[in-house]
Amino acid sequence: MPVGTQGSVKAIEHRELLAEDARIILGNTYHLYLRPGTEIIQKAGGLHRFIGWNGHLLTDSGGYQVFSLSDLRGISEEGVQFRSHLDGSLHQFTPERVIDFQRTYGSDIMMVLDECPPYPCDEEYAAKSNALTVRWARRSKEQEAKTERLYEHEQALFGIVQGSVYPAIREESARMLSALEFAGYAIGGLSVGEPADLMYRMIELTTEILPTEKPRYLMGVGTPENILEAVERGVDMFDCVLPTRNARNAVIFTSQGRLNMRNAKHATDFSPMDPACHCYACRSFTRAYVRHLFKAGEILALQLATMHNISYYLTLMRSAREAILSGTFPAWKQSVLGTIAVDESAE
Amino acid sequence: MPVGTQGSVKAIEHRELLAEDARIILGNTYHLYLRPGTEIIQKAGGLHRFIGWNGHLLTDSGGYQVFSLSDLRGISEEGVQFRSHLDGSLHQFTPERVIDFQRTYGSDIMMVLDECPPYPCDEEYAAKSNALTVRWARRSKEQEAKTERLYEHEQALFGIVQGSVYPAIREESARMLSALEFAGYAIGGLSVGEPADLMYRMIELTTEILPTEKPRYLMGVGTPENILEAVERGVDMFDCVLPTRNARNAVIFTSQGRLNMRNAKHATDFSPMDPACHCYACRSFTRAYVRHLFKAGEILALQLATMHNISYYLTLMRSAREAILSGTFPAWKQSVLGTIAVDESAE
Repeated sequence: MPVGTQGSVKAIEHRELLAEDARIILGNTYHLYLRPGTEIIQKAGGLHRFIGWNGHLLTDSGGYQVFSLSDLRGISEEGVQFRSHLDGSLHQFTPERVIDFQRTYGSDIMMVLDECPPYPCDEEYAAKSNALTVRWARRSKEQEAKTERLYEHEQALFGIVQGSVYPAIREESARMLSALEFAGYAIGGLSVGEPADLMYRMIELTTEILPTEKPRYLMGVGTPENILEAVERGVDMFDCVLPTRNARNAVIFTSQGRLNMRNAKHATDFSPMDPACHCYACRSFTRAYVRHLFKAGEILALQLATMHNISYYLTLMRSAREAILSGTFPAWKQSVLGTIAVDESAE
Repeated sequence: MPVGTQGSVKAIEHRELLAEDARIILGNTYHLYLRPGTEIIQKAGGLHRFIGWNGHLLTDSGGYQVFSLSDLRGISEEGVQFRSHLDGSLHQFTPERVIDFQRTYGSDIMMVLDECPPYPCDEEYAAKSNALTVRWARRSKEQEAKTERLYEHEQALFGIVQGSVYPAIREESARMLSALEFAGYAIGGLSVGEPADLMYRMIELTTEILPTEKPRYLMGVGTPENILEAVERGVDMFDCVLPTRNARNAVIFTSQGRLNMRNAKHATDFSPMDPACHCYACRSFTRAYVRHLFKAGEILALQLATMHNISYYLTLMRSAREAILSGTFPAWKQSVLGTIAVDESAE
């Protein structure tokens, strides 16, 4: 899922996302709640209408941004209090309010409010935090049952497995949430600084427990490598700012590895950013031109690099699905990891 | 002509320009000479190829930027010496070199090097400056004759009428240049701070003299009002950064006047930016959404506003052509001036 934090996937048009077969994008409840605010989205007739997006929308619960971005004032049984990073105003998110917001948005997939502990965090805190997250998940489920959808389409609610890097807590979390029978399950609190191996282990033991017939969504991950390893461990869905943020920093993902489009070596390279890619940017423009646009500070550089990286990621996911269906995933994955290993982006 | 200073019309894709029926865009010789440099453009096979643009290209002579942007070191009979605004490096432009650059670019329309005097400037300086501009124009014509095009397509060379706001000098300039038989004629040195009435008078007396069968191009102008007045006085071509620069500052041109998309009044306005416009931005998105994008600092705001303003300007020009052909220009112009008069952009 390309990330459209504030109701726009940065530097790319909706029709271009659809052309790359992006069927769902993510919006951030924290950002949208603060700006433009729930009232304006309600007046517009929901988030799809407000932003003019005809595909699906997943909104997160805002929890992650409250913990990472806002000035956090306190966590209680009731919810979280925080000050806006925009104007310092004081706000409270509770599991119930967060469901209400997402009812107003009309998100196709709603997420429960959770606490995302930092890494590292000690086992005692992780256990206490997870217990709270599970109690909040139950209240979210109850609020979902108590409230009606406001628009024509169905809304699914996903629970979020936490537990930091502690196997027993992760397993407990996965079991408790499975019992609550969510429409899908997210794995949260990973890719927050822990070693990749530890992340993969946590994914593995979580997906072992989660019901196989429901989607599993690894939140905020990640690099192509991370995604392939997680897919192999049974994860179905991902979101990450990496393709779009990297693009704006001139770093592109290609079939020839990770390239930095500012590098001097591209100055007279009149081949496409990625010869294997069929996006408009790769069909129409050369590395030399894209490099020039980055060096000259042109907005078009951000547009073309973003379009390409989105295309790369969505093609990667489509290819992974095809490889799974044809029973060739392990070999396919190895071949992709070979191309991914080339990284000149830090040169 | 939308302005693509550094080889990109800011914040809009080439295919979107073509979709709005932009058949020619402008590139700036000064900028392109400094970055990426003539050598890279030559290696790419010309400017069309370097930037991947299949429409026509006009390049200016670089004169205007040398006088307005660089650290000017001196004007001599030979040419101009200046230091780059990018790195302070020392460069010289002569009429001959500027033709050579544009041969390398392969510009469909090349412009002669001219001196663009500031406003105000005294009559003596204006006369001396114009005499130099005319001598440079003659040398440009000779250099054009001495050199060959490097690519398949024809290259036209335009002269530039100067003379500040002095009727006699303007007329002298127009007469001398007409005698040199350029493929087209630009009117330069206007819209540099003089009152609009004075500009219109200068245009009028210049177009009276210039041959009617050749295109007349008013450089760097302007607002929709300016353009309509100049069209009425016989001008055929324009370039201006106004539609694109204004767009990036949230100011849009519409059939309902000039709007500032940051204004609070648009917060819950779910109508299109311009109900009369058929561009993708107006077909797909509301003022409320575009305002949100501007307030949130989203790049998509710049993309949508730019696309719309380009569409507005090109529709304006198309409508002017149709009105002229159907003999209804004066009435049509009055009706457009009525809508243009509304300006809430400074509110």
